[in-house]
Amino acid sequence: MTFPVVGMVGGGQLARMTHEAGIPLGIRFKLLSDTPQDSAAQVVSDVVIGDYRDLETLRAFAQGCDVITFDHEHVPTAHLRVLEADGIAVRPGPDALQHAHDKGVMRAKLSEIGVPCPRHRIVTDPADVARFAAEGDGFPVVLKTVVGGYDGKGVWVVRDEDGAADPFLAGVPVLAEEKVDFVRELAANVVRSPHGQAVSYPVVESVQVNGVCDTVIAPAPDLSAELSAQAQQLALTIAAELGVVGHLAVELFETRDGRILVNELAMRPHNSGHWTQDGAMTSQFANHVRAVLDLPLGDPRPRAKWTVMANVLGGDFPDMYSAYLHCMARDPQLKIHMYGKDVKPGRKVGHVNTYGDDLADVRERARHAADYLRGTITE
Amino acid sequence: MTFPVVGMVGGGQLARMTHEAGIPLGIRFKLLSDTPQDSAAQVVSDVVIGDYRDLETLRAFAQGCDVITFDHEHVPTAHLRVLEADGIAVRPGPDALQHAHDKGVMRAKLSEIGVPCPRHRIVTDPADVARFAAEGDGFPVVLKTVVGGYDGKGVWVVRDEDGAADPFLAGVPVLAEEKVDFVRELAANVVRSPHGQAVSYPVVESVQVNGVCDTVIAPAPDLSAELSAQAQQLALTIAAELGVVGHLAVELFETRDGRILVNELAMRPHNSGHWTQDGAMTSQFANHVRAVLDLPLGDPRPRAKWTVMANVLGGDFPDMYSAYLHCMARDPQLKIHMYGKDVKPGRKVGHVNTYGDDLADVRERARHAADYLRGTITE
Repeated sequence: MTFPVVGMVGGGQLARMTHEAGIPLGIRFKLLSDTPQDSAAQVVSDVVIGDYRDLETLRAFAQGCDVITFDHEHVPTAHLRVLEADGIAVRPGPDALQHAHDKGVMRAKLSEIGVPCPRHRIVTDPADVARFAAEGDGFPVVLKTVVGGYDGKGVWVVRDEDGAADPFLAGVPVLAEEKVDFVRELAANVVRSPHGQAVSYPVVESVQVNGVCDTVIAPAPDLSAELSAQAQQLALTIAAELGVVGHLAVELFETRDGRILVNELAMRPHNSGHWTQDGAMTSQFANHVRAVLDLPLGDPRPRAKWTVMANVLGGDFPDMYSAYLHCMARDPQLKIHMYGKDVKPGRKVGHVNTYGDDLADVRERARHAADYLRGTITE
Repeated sequence: MTFPVVGMVGGGQLARMTHEAGIPLGIRFKLLSDTPQDSAAQVVSDVVIGDYRDLETLRAFAQGCDVITFDHEHVPTAHLRVLEADGIAVRPGPDALQHAHDKGVMRAKLSEIGVPCPRHRIVTDPADVARFAAEGDGFPVVLKTVVGGYDGKGVWVVRDEDGAADPFLAGVPVLAEEKVDFVRELAANVVRSPHGQAVSYPVVESVQVNGVCDTVIAPAPDLSAELSAQAQQLALTIAAELGVVGHLAVELFETRDGRILVNELAMRPHNSGHWTQDGAMTSQFANHVRAVLDLPLGDPRPRAKWTVMANVLGGDFPDMYSAYLHCMARDPQLKIHMYGKDVKPGRKVGHVNTYGDDLADVRERARHAADYLRGTITE
């Protein structure tokens, strides 16, 4: 048999779920993981323990892989260029990934290709932040370190010049953005293959709590057909223009005045696409694997009228397994996805999916299960 | 976290797919496999290579497992009793498994509890076969060795006394059964947990070619509601009466005169239930894991009007991966499930699932994909 080897860099839950989705395809899956306890390392046969920041570790890992893909966007771009020079297929490649790695590069590129973004520019110090505010509608202003942020980390909302010092302490460039007056957040998920085929999932609503994704509703309720098509087209355009291979999540703001603006990009399976595991004909993970192998993509259409995903965050209650009894007995259609992670307060340790015809019911079931698993409700 | 460890004995495709289904539950999966190349060993992290027929290997493997379950029914019953004496949860347990291990024990028990079976009795030699034939409608008669048969192996259809010698050569008891005049084969799949909860999947039609399952149609077309309910009730009764824990497949004959008779039992996930991976709310594999852990069972109802499974057998064409291009491009909804096995003529190396509203279309898509993967068609 000539089944290919997919090399996955990073052992988090995205790698874990990509492995799960790759098993039916009969492909070989090889994992580069920081530790044997990492989420994906617990369930994969062929694991190399090593540091992806070490070039020689990465090069040795890549030998024998037909393609390299990623659980996260932290691998240095220069390392990826060396792998490509070694003749390894890197998907998505460094030219695309730099836009996910550096928010400054991303904003510059999106503006260049005409994608609507919040007003933005790189700022140099708190006084420059004040100038940026004055150029527009004033404070508040959003500040982001161009690298290293996720789940609300590396992001500040500042109300005046005096409050704008912290983001500059890390010594990395800081991007200022207008604070968008949005009514909600959306996400457009697309998958693109090297030969240019692309599929687009329904646009979803992403409900954030404290800067962390809490609930995703697929499709986004009451979204106009026009905005939905516009969001899908934007994501397809970004994927094509940036040369993305694999899954691309485009996080969007829906503004009060009826526009959509791009917030963030992720070039890998994404939290806003977890609903596809149980709610779409082909999951984002299966399509990511197909894309990086340049196989024809699977049908992205929904299998249910509504699908809701709720993240399970760590709480004060460490024994989530005992909560299965109640959750499974209460809702025999509930889909639990746990990541094998130790519970720490606020840490994403799993998610649940529910689906059905009645959105209120589907939301309530997901909410109840996520809260019960976390331990914030006990009945 | 206090997530349990499920110990799986046997490294075949059923173990592989059970692991896949267990990943979302966050459970630990430990595998006892004959070789590192076995289907499941390719995709599981925690693998012990060893011979399940060796008691001490089995006992050592079971240490640290919360429950032991099985990819096949070949573990000696005496070994399982030792494990139970060691305090290990064995599910299904030896009292149930003996009925799947020995067709003579199975027939005796089913008759005792009033389950309709083909006329049968243990026969001692060819002359006794002739007497068995004369006791009923004469030849042909079906002969089966009571242990060791599967996929048509260990089964003979004999037309006279002279042709009845072979089955006795193996030196194991031989069961004679009337050759049932059936119009088709059905299968009733149920899952039962230790505390007695049970779920029943829709009754399916199983199309056999040369004694090997070829296609499964869910639900069985044109099956009367009465026979369907009777088949489901039979399977639930058998599961309860035999004390089955986990998945139970009951293979049935639908006779020309409108009755159903039990053909075979399997106490593990079964080929006739593979359609549930993509066609049911909860797959047989996920429910098997839930059952052996005594968790509440998942909803067994179908997600599509029709789901068809077609087995992919090895042919003369070894490179199935290259066939993915055509199959996936032709049918973006196709679900391929490959087992990581080397292609050998006639060997089950994978299966495909298709679903939809139009049975003729769903069957054609499954048939085409299975034939194309095998290499018997090239366009």
